Amino acid sequence: MNGPVSGNAVAEGPLAILCGGGTLPFTVADMVAQKGRKVFIYALNGWADPKRVEAYPHQWGAIGQFGRFCRFARTAGCRDVVLIGTLIRPSFSQIRFDVATLRVLPQIVAAFRGGDDHLLTGVGRIFENAGFRLLGAHEVAPDILMKEGILGGVRPSARDEADIAFALDVLRATGAFDIGQGVVVADRHVLALEAAEGTDLMLSRIADLKRSGRVRASGGVLVKAPKPNQDRRFDLPSIGPETIEAVARAGLAGLAVVAGGTIVAEPQRVTEIADRTKVFVTGIPDAGLPP
Amino acid sequence: MNGPVSGNAVAEGPLAILCGGGTLPFTVADMVAQKGRKVFIYALNGWADPKRVEAYPHQWGAIGQFGRFCRFARTAGCRDVVLIGTLIRPSFSQIRFDVATLRVLPQIVAAFRGGDDHLLTGVGRIFENAGFRLLGAHEVAPDILMKEGILGGVRPSARDEADIAFALDVLRATGAFDIGQGVVVADRHVLALEAAEGTDLMLSRIADLKRSGRVRASGGVLVKAPKPNQDRRFDLPSIGPETIEAVARAGLAGLAVVAGGTIVAEPQRVTEIADRTKVFVTGIPDAGLPP
Repeated sequence: MNGPVSGNAVAEGPLAILCGGGTLPFTVADMVAQKGRKVFIYALNGWADPKRVEAYPHQWGAIGQFGRFCRFARTAGCRDVVLIGTLIRPSFSQIRFDVATLRVLPQIVAAFRGGDDHLLTGVGRIFENAGFRLLGAHEVAPDILMKEGILGGVRPSARDEADIAFALDVLRATGAFDIGQGVVVADRHVLALEAAEGTDLMLSRIADLKRSGRVRASGGVLVKAPKPNQDRRFDLPSIGPETIEAVARAGLAGLAVVAGGTIVAEPQRVTEIADRTKVFVTGIPDAGLPP
Repeated sequence: MNGPVSGNAVAEGPLAILCGGGTLPFTVADMVAQKGRKVFIYALNGWADPKRVEAYPHQWGAIGQFGRFCRFARTAGCRDVVLIGTLIRPSFSQIRFDVATLRVLPQIVAAFRGGDDHLLTGVGRIFENAGFRLLGAHEVAPDILMKEGILGGVRPSARDEADIAFALDVLRATGAFDIGQGVVVADRHVLALEAAEGTDLMLSRIADLKRSGRVRASGGVLVKAPKPNQDRRFDLPSIGPETIEAVARAGLAGLAVVAGGTIVAEPQRVTEIADRTKVFVTGIPDAGLPP
């Protein structure tokens, strides 16, 4: 795992946040700003929340306008960049490229081949070639990471612990293939493996399979873990209030994530919802999952 | 893989088919009867097709009436039994047990724990303990198996071949966990992995993800393979006309299955639909997939 950036935050200079959808970019921005570091937001059209962007010096731009981003970040004096927020893998035909982007297009095309990891690692290289340092959100705001132990009052049972261990074995085996980061296990029986559909759709599938009687197992666990070769700077698994709601709707007993390797959006609300829906949320040690 | 039963079919005595849903049990029954072997059908209530059962000496029964099955098969002089046809993993509470079943209940309970393989292997042991020999449908009717090569006129491209090889690597890694037998890959990117939902639901998920723009890959392949430790007597992957229709609806280029390790229901119609929908169907060698 990449170590957190140490030293004086202010000495690192201002931070550019390339901001996608959701609340997480602003949680990170607020944490960074609270430590006295100046934050500039490059807000992605159609993704970033316009209301919350207002709180920071910002500029709007589109995916594909890499040159526009570079000018904005350099003018603001930012060397460090964090990419964060939801963003669906874009279609080539929907992207309007500017000149700077066209120059790096061969790298982008190469990155588009293969799995998500490949895409993101390729993107990272492009920023670095342009003189920026790409950091993980957790490196500038370590408090967004899940810690070891329980959020809320519900604990996993012995059965749940066995299912969590089994699920981690499955994720270790699939991780080499750059597949999803989630698996649902009940009584050491794999109910679902996440690939392109994402965690939320996988969980609603479990709810459907249970409703239709196709899956009869009660309980079960969702386990999410970073992929073994994942570049943790921009693709850590994350959970939030909606994740807990979806786990409860799928009739699962709870959710285990890797401590130090999972982002928790709005931990306070996550805890409240876990207690209300009687779902456990546990941060497990990273042991056995390679960095 | 278990070798086919050799020798004179008639000398093996009559065959009992424990018959679930779909057309496959009757394809097998017809093939066996054509070779001159007498067939008795034990038809599962709610699953077996009542019209087609009429063509054979038969008895109706429920899951859980193991004693009733034993009496029927013994009276008919059957030592060999084939289990075939669709049947959703039943719920304990829905099963009405007879006395013979209650006697083997601890074995059934043990079999219900863990994955599907475990369940089916446990079921096999129960039949064997009662003096029957449980055979795979392909052992009594080898022609139901996919052969090496293409069905129909469409061939996989070089890109498809690379995706098939990648998919086989994925299935080798997941096979140890008794997960599903199917994976969808496009450009060496895993779009979906089958678990409890089954192949049809996995394919309709791909269609949905493509429609919503969440998956933008064109083409891609479905690969199905037996699990490495699968008891091939009663759980070979199978494909049929609906599989090809679903592959086409998902916008995939085609479908690869393991030759000699996959049942093809209605190969004639499979070929017609493959040609009409311009989808390839290929039987690949078993090399590298442990028996």
